[in-house]
Amino acid sequence: MDAGERIEQALAQAVARTEAENAPPKLAGAIRHGVFPGGARARPRLTLAVARACGEDRPEMTNAAAAAIELLHCASLVHDDLPCFDDADTRRGLPSVHAAYGVPVALLAGDALIVLAFETLARSAVEAPDRLGALIGTVARAVGAPFGIAAGQAWESEPNPPAQQYRCSKTGALFVAATMAGAISAGQDPGPWRRLGHHLGEAYQVADDLLDAVATAEQHGKPVGRDAALGRPNAVAELGLNGAVERLERLIEDAMDAVPKSRGEEELRELVRLQALRLAPKRLLRSAA
Amino acid sequence: MDAGERIEQALAQAVARTEAENAPPKLAGAIRHGVFPGGARARPRLTLAVARACGEDRPEMTNAAAAAIELLHCASLVHDDLPCFDDADTRRGLPSVHAAYGVPVALLAGDALIVLAFETLARSAVEAPDRLGALIGTVARAVGAPFGIAAGQAWESEPNPPAQQYRCSKTGALFVAATMAGAISAGQDPGPWRRLGHHLGEAYQVADDLLDAVATAEQHGKPVGRDAALGRPNAVAELGLNGAVERLERLIEDAMDAVPKSRGEEELRELVRLQALRLAPKRLLRSAA
Repeated sequence: MDAGERIEQALAQAVARTEAENAPPKLAGAIRHGVFPGGARARPRLTLAVARACGEDRPEMTNAAAAAIELLHCASLVHDDLPCFDDADTRRGLPSVHAAYGVPVALLAGDALIVLAFETLARSAVEAPDRLGALIGTVARAVGAPFGIAAGQAWESEPNPPAQQYRCSKTGALFVAATMAGAISAGQDPGPWRRLGHHLGEAYQVADDLLDAVATAEQHGKPVGRDAALGRPNAVAELGLNGAVERLERLIEDAMDAVPKSRGEEELRELVRLQALRLAPKRLLRSAA
Repeated sequence: MDAGERIEQALAQAVARTEAENAPPKLAGAIRHGVFPGGARARPRLTLAVARACGEDRPEMTNAAAAAIELLHCASLVHDDLPCFDDADTRRGLPSVHAAYGVPVALLAGDALIVLAFETLARSAVEAPDRLGALIGTVARAVGAPFGIAAGQAWESEPNPPAQQYRCSKTGALFVAATMAGAISAGQDPGPWRRLGHHLGEAYQVADDLLDAVATAEQHGKPVGRDAALGRPNAVAELGLNGAVERLERLIEDAMDAVPKSRGEEELRELVRLQALRLAPKRLLRSAA
């Protein structure tokens, strides 16, 4: 089974556990809508790739880690799209969850997805209970306060948010968790994998800023120009278009350099390159050729 | 240290971990405001009492379980008070979190509290890693979908929600988790403790319905008459005032009968009685004397 199939299957199993005949149907629909169809699944792909590079020995735990990371990413998108934040009616070219199910159900779907992520990790613990505490701690720090996604998003409610910190919390933290969780689920020290996640997370944020600035809504699958309209820290506003492109290219190189010596080293570098190309506005990158 | 002090200390330690000098200050304030000052802390008291009755041997894990249960309760209140649900400007006699910090930060504070609950459990795993999976699974099921708090709340967005199921998910599930988590954190089988949590949860919901119907906002610490105004399943609307009082008394008796044979049996029955008296409108209960 290739990585993409493993991820979709793990997500399908997790989402199915939120459904039951005598449960509120709109919530179940909203949870499913928030997860499928997915985007690039960049974070769980990274988790699987790192686990493989670390000599994966508990595939069910790796699958759970990958699914949990993606469920938390989906939860953040569902909440981020709400009218009190981005007020985005579309996501991945479809109605956003609140556009399809209403604000109350969308808010609850985000909550339920956060909970589902941790439940999914807990279920995998039968395989290796001694890895669960570190896995949950690492994932939780990436999404909560003071330095996870919730904190990153909360900077948008502060005057003059520090650009670097905003980016690290809102996007970088979950990429760091994606790499580290891959190592933990394989029973390895996650420390050496932090730098790879850090550079990739920043690269993705800059790529997203570039898309927000130059793509059309159709290409991006969601409304564009929001950062400028909302006055948010943004690499394009900060560095100009060329400066942001240069920064993105530097970050992709840094990420490739940050892959630790491991048996899956080459495969991982290739994944990093491909993911970078997939997300960045191709015509802007010199290295895209 | 008595139960109340243990709970406040465990919550203070958890909340402090969401604070940092270079983190967004409003979010930290909102998280703290959502947890302190607390209400009756009925659920974590129950967790501690059950753990003691089960021969508690890992007090740090019990503290973490109690704190996690209360953090999730607080998260549900923060989200429940938002304009898209109860639109409540006050809670425990103070401004609700969104009234004090705005809707975006309140929404994120709820998210961060959910995450903090699981992080708190994970940190306690060093004491007994083999108990963590069951603990997190039990707690997660009580707050997510298909049968936890998120599902209970989502029934409010469905036509003609089933009263019993709505009540069980929105309130009962976390009481069940509170008793079961107490047993798990003490290394015991949680099964025999389910019934106690179930009856208590339903008793609390009926008590809350009675308060909503007859108390003043000042006594209740939050707006009253919301259930009737919003057409929600409600024991008073369903059974009448006297019928609801009779049901509450029956549920309190059922709860006392459901305390399993254990060394802390008598202490637990007394706690159940006291908690019931504390929450119910005293002048309505014959057994309050």
